[in-house]
Amino acid sequence: MSGSEPLIGVFDSGVGGLTVVAALRQRLPAASILYLGDTARLPYGTKSRRTVLRYSQANVDFLQRRGVDALVVACNTASAMALEDLDVRTPHWGVLEPGASAAVAAAGRHVGVIATESTVRSAAYEHAIRRLNPELRVSQRACPLLVPLVEEGWEDDEITERIVARYLAPLLEAEIDTLLLGCTHYPLLRGVLARVCGPGVTLVDSAESTSLAVEHRLRRAGRGGGSAPRAPSVRLFATDAGSRFARLAERILGEPAPLEWIDVNQAETT
Amino acid sequence: MSGSEPLIGVFDSGVGGLTVVAALRQRLPAASILYLGDTARLPYGTKSRRTVLRYSQANVDFLQRRGVDALVVACNTASAMALEDLDVRTPHWGVLEPGASAAVAAAGRHVGVIATESTVRSAAYEHAIRRLNPELRVSQRACPLLVPLVEEGWEDDEITERIVARYLAPLLEAEIDTLLLGCTHYPLLRGVLARVCGPGVTLVDSAESTSLAVEHRLRRAGRGGGSAPRAPSVRLFATDAGSRFARLAERILGEPAPLEWIDVNQAETT
Repeated sequence: MSGSEPLIGVFDSGVGGLTVVAALRQRLPAASILYLGDTARLPYGTKSRRTVLRYSQANVDFLQRRGVDALVVACNTASAMALEDLDVRTPHWGVLEPGASAAVAAAGRHVGVIATESTVRSAAYEHAIRRLNPELRVSQRACPLLVPLVEEGWEDDEITERIVARYLAPLLEAEIDTLLLGCTHYPLLRGVLARVCGPGVTLVDSAESTSLAVEHRLRRAGRGGGSAPRAPSVRLFATDAGSRFARLAERILGEPAPLEWIDVNQAETT
Repeated sequence: MSGSEPLIGVFDSGVGGLTVVAALRQRLPAASILYLGDTARLPYGTKSRRTVLRYSQANVDFLQRRGVDALVVACNTASAMALEDLDVRTPHWGVLEPGASAAVAAAGRHVGVIATESTVRSAAYEHAIRRLNPELRVSQRACPLLVPLVEEGWEDDEITERIVARYLAPLLEAEIDTLLLGCTHYPLLRGVLARVCGPGVTLVDSAESTSLAVEHRLRRAGRGGGSAPRAPSVRLFATDAGSRFARLAERILGEPAPLEWIDVNQAETT
């Protein structure tokens, strides 16, 4: 790391957190980013708190060993279930609080939240939104098929639109005015979500608001780096060497980035 | 274990392998069964060979420590990618060879195989079928959304039927006469698959043929146990304590069974 250019570590269970990396690249073009996708153990969204915490700590340790000076938990499940119990030595963010703040700023009276099963079960978004504005009504809906649909590459597809319509029906009937996309994969479904919701519902995602929070903090600390774009400096790590990851990563980032297979937990292999 | 009643260990990445347990319960009602679902690390179907082998060996070790005298790898991905490299001390079976044999027995000229991405990539079914009958034509199709659809409980649903129709279209256009369900979750989609395929296509699953192979071997060794049903003796273990597992397990087994949360790899937690 040279001068004041920060090294930011980002992890997610898979490829979805790259939507946060794409947003960070826009806001902090001089920052270097190490991204870890724990693809060997994804998805986190159907797993227990204990398991998600154990996996998340291993990811944090991996990134800290590589000297990151800021860390983003770009996985909603891990943000909801593990963030407060993680042992992290640098400034760090989940995607939950920034997402909740953005939803509160956009909301009229009723916020809908869509997320994975575990995130919904934790009710973490509901609590975060109500802490910021206890007047708001919050309705949640678990949408476990949306991540596999994105990973299948069916983001803009009429079957996906019908599944989204089914998931959202109770929220739309209850007249939500804002929809918080509580999973980092979901920004890739923005087109379908907007069509199903219609113009009366504002879509909010955490990728944008999280990257804004990181930018503010780093610039305040004089660590924002230059504003001029320089050579791309995103490095990707995945715990499993599937071919999907590279394919989806380039689609999300809009640029190629070197990808390396790593084992975050050597103990597991012995 | 008392007398000649065998203790059979069965593992899968999740709940799908219980279709094999249900078939074993029919054929060997006096056998005791230990079932391990590696739900903390599912799905295997999108992961690499190295990772699948590592996870599978941990599952085998767990079941062997509990004294099983026969072992079934009831996960098609693990059967395809890991079976031959596993260190197992008891008679053991994957679901691949039995499934391939059943398909060859049922086939006319052209067998379609549906499976997860990893199983299809390994081409293991194609090779197993061609070893048994080199004349047969074999066409494969990866169907990554079918497992999440089953886990969502949408087994008999018109959206699932449309997704199945899309996946099967190239196979049906190529006039398959037999369809091998190359994933232990898929027998739960039998109704939808039969409607999409129509009467001209025979559906074959490995659960049935695998349980037959186990029965033959155990009876030959005088270890088939009595034929009279006795009190249910299935014990379930899962590596993650999600609530889904219990719900789906009872639906597949048609009987309740005690479920315990375990960690197959203590090393990982230290």
